[in-house]
Amino acid sequence: MPTVEHMQAMVNRYLQALNQSDLEAVVALYATDATVEDPVGSVPLVGIDAIRAFYAGAVAMQLELVLEGEIRIVGNEAAFPFSVSFVHEGRRTTIRPIDLMRFNEAGQIVSMRAYFGASNIRVA
Amino acid sequence: MPTVEHMQAMVNRYLQALNQSDLEAVVALYATDATVEDPVGSVPLVGIDAIRAFYAGAVAMQLELVLEGEIRIVGNEAAFPFSVSFVHEGRRTTIRPIDLMRFNEAGQIVSMRAYFGASNIRVA
Repeated sequence: MPTVEHMQAMVNRYLQALNQSDLEAVVALYATDATVEDPVGSVPLVGIDAIRAFYAGAVAMQLELVLEGEIRIVGNEAAFPFSVSFVHEGRRTTIRPIDLMRFNEAGQIVSMRAYFGASNIRVA
Repeated sequence: MPTVEHMQAMVNRYLQALNQSDLEAVVALYATDATVEDPVGSVPLVGIDAIRAFYAGAVAMQLELVLEGEIRIVGNEAAFPFSVSFVHEGRRTTIRPIDLMRFNEAGQIVSMRAYFGASNIRVA
């Protein structure tokens, strides 16, 4: 089981890597067979290639992420509230998800699911 | 599918009912066959009688709950960060969970899972 400190550090590295638009640093946090469901309800992406393609699109948007509450850790899972904003068609859009991450024995992310919907999106 | 507004209202009613130590108001939000896993990783409680017994213990502690971020709604699910504090053996304890609720077609809670661990508990 990964430690609490390890999972907290992985979440912080995830936010930092996205803030730095560092695609390979984001991808390196995931297990090769990981899944990403962002948002919850969408068809999950399976495997590191699909995950890399997804985050390639994300980092191209120069995202700004801010942790907005403490990281909840239980078992091999982390849940955390944050905001992510970007400029789309000249207007700043801010989304407030709660991400749920599950970790494997090696401490890599094996599952990420993002909880947000239309009520959590603001367009300036 | 319950509406976004309905699910937001259910979360607010849940927090209010617990703040008022109103056991029956809490229980009324749940479907009769609902499950509660609080915290995640514990053996889930199944059915309204087990759920009533659980919240009877909770309301006896005169909990104070505060929503600490917006309610995330996607599909038939809500996720929200909050704090809950109570006095235990003369000391105020504050826990910061993220609760995940799933709703049925009738708009009742059918599943609640609470994400928090030792790193989310403070004793004053």
